[in-house]
Amino acid sequence: MKKVVVIGGGTGVFTVLTGLKDYSDLELCAIVSMADDGGSTGLLREEFGTLPPGDIRRALIALSGSNKEVLSKLFNYRFDKDSSLKGHTVGNILLTALEKITGSFPAAIAEAVDILNVKGKVIPVTLSQTSLVAELEDGSKIYGETNIDIPKHDGKKKIQKLSLNSKAPANPDAISEIEEADAVILGPGDLYTSIIPNLLIDGISDAVRKTKGKVIYNINIMTKYGETNGFKASDFIKTIEEYLGKNIIDFVTINTEKPKGDIVERYEKENVGFVEDNLRDSNIKVIRGDFLRRGMFLRHDPKKLSEKLYRTIND
Amino acid sequence: MKKVVVIGGGTGVFTVLTGLKDYSDLELCAIVSMADDGGSTGLLREEFGTLPPGDIRRALIALSGSNKEVLSKLFNYRFDKDSSLKGHTVGNILLTALEKITGSFPAAIAEAVDILNVKGKVIPVTLSQTSLVAELEDGSKIYGETNIDIPKHDGKKKIQKLSLNSKAPANPDAISEIEEADAVILGPGDLYTSIIPNLLIDGISDAVRKTKGKVIYNINIMTKYGETNGFKASDFIKTIEEYLGKNIIDFVTINTEKPKGDIVERYEKENVGFVEDNLRDSNIKVIRGDFLRRGMFLRHDPKKLSEKLYRTIND
Repeated sequence: MKKVVVIGGGTGVFTVLTGLKDYSDLELCAIVSMADDGGSTGLLREEFGTLPPGDIRRALIALSGSNKEVLSKLFNYRFDKDSSLKGHTVGNILLTALEKITGSFPAAIAEAVDILNVKGKVIPVTLSQTSLVAELEDGSKIYGETNIDIPKHDGKKKIQKLSLNSKAPANPDAISEIEEADAVILGPGDLYTSIIPNLLIDGISDAVRKTKGKVIYNINIMTKYGETNGFKASDFIKTIEEYLGKNIIDFVTINTEKPKGDIVERYEKENVGFVEDNLRDSNIKVIRGDFLRRGMFLRHDPKKLSEKLYRTIND
Repeated sequence: MKKVVVIGGGTGVFTVLTGLKDYSDLELCAIVSMADDGGSTGLLREEFGTLPPGDIRRALIALSGSNKEVLSKLFNYRFDKDSSLKGHTVGNILLTALEKITGSFPAAIAEAVDILNVKGKVIPVTLSQTSLVAELEDGSKIYGETNIDIPKHDGKKKIQKLSLNSKAPANPDAISEIEEADAVILGPGDLYTSIIPNLLIDGISDAVRKTKGKVIYNINIMTKYGETNGFKASDFIKTIEEYLGKNIIDFVTINTEKPKGDIVERYEKENVGFVEDNLRDSNIKVIRGDFLRRGMFLRHDPKKLSEKLYRTIND
């Protein structure tokens, strides 16, 4: 059994886990960002002082081994924003209640793991409350994940530096999982709001540097307005390396399939485009492929991506 | 296996089911009132157009066979009233989401039965939305279960007649369960807001009249201000018979233990007293016993009550 650790947040971790789950000879572990402070998660976090449940919920569902399909639907069910349930998802509500009942976030996750018959581990990157601060190129600062994710500035200003408002030590389980992994997979996901927030947690970058496993970074398919405007593949790598260090990433994956048409035009209207592949093999091996999912969004296809990842892990 | 149907609402059904669950040779079925329109249940009902989950939740928890104690705690966990979760319980939220996901209340209950590994059946008395109307002795009317339960009038006026704002047919499952039962148990519980609401549902009283089983009515330990002021045991029976018909009840249980002290004084301050036992054996057999639970409230003890019920069922 190869041990595979997936680090990230948002839908990226969900995609990778969903794909890799089909390989029964992999032992999967998700290490999930605790930076989210928007929507249902943000409201629960503020009101109940709990850790953010949203990304944990997604990872739990991705790894659910329950044959009760309704359980995944239930965990993901979102109430109307205008109701007294304020746009909360059932899973977020459950995790919040379980944290209150059990007295700790890891214990709450353990109960949810049990209910959903989760195959694998889901680990919050830190158990400390912390929050993101982005410094823009003009010196101004943005506070909080949501404000960085959906910028109020014109969105063209570059992020100069991402940091935490207060030092947060890594969850010790996260460190040991990374160090002992056969492969550590970063992303895909929003660079400054899903990937790097993990690397800012005290001890995580160190653990990735020390791991005996291969380090693989999945470069996003599309740029993101306000975070990675006009970024080429090399810019993604360079930015990650600022926080992780050089010569740590062993492989990157990059999508080669770039369709044309309505979807792309819709993205372009929102100042978002395909990430240009300007990479040459160096210390980092480049894995190219058609990783695109057919559908309304230009996102990774779990199956296509995980096929290449699986081969890389086992090479 | 004897088939036992428990009809009611509120905490009374919970008490009887909790007690009888320990007898492995009983097949239990809870038929639960759909009149509740207060608190978390009322809010969900109003906002989501779903059937009231509160009493169903209590019956599900009572019959839960899950060895995961945390699941019962989770279903009963109530969020703060001042939070964005508005005093909702997790179980009510789950049942509401499950009704939306599955498209029907019985299907939602079936899923919850599965999650909680429920031993027995939990059946809503009707699948129609309906609401209570109480006519007082002065001719004035009170609308809705909560307004009857917590009266805004001085609480001394007698309820002359209880009815529904619109005709509601019984859930067919409820009728067949009652007709085929070896015992049908009514109460304990609030007379006008938990017990009689079931008898108003079209077909339920008929089914109780037709059942081959013994009909047992658990008379409340205490009177209730605004519903049963100064009621003696015979008043409870007489009132039930107005809706159910005469010579249908075979047995009543009545508590004989009446402690004195602080608790009783606290109850008396709220115009509530012990129900006086003025019964003589007639067509209805009277089962007397110490049914009182030790604690903060003067309520039935599940174990004590169910011992006598079990003996009566098997006699």
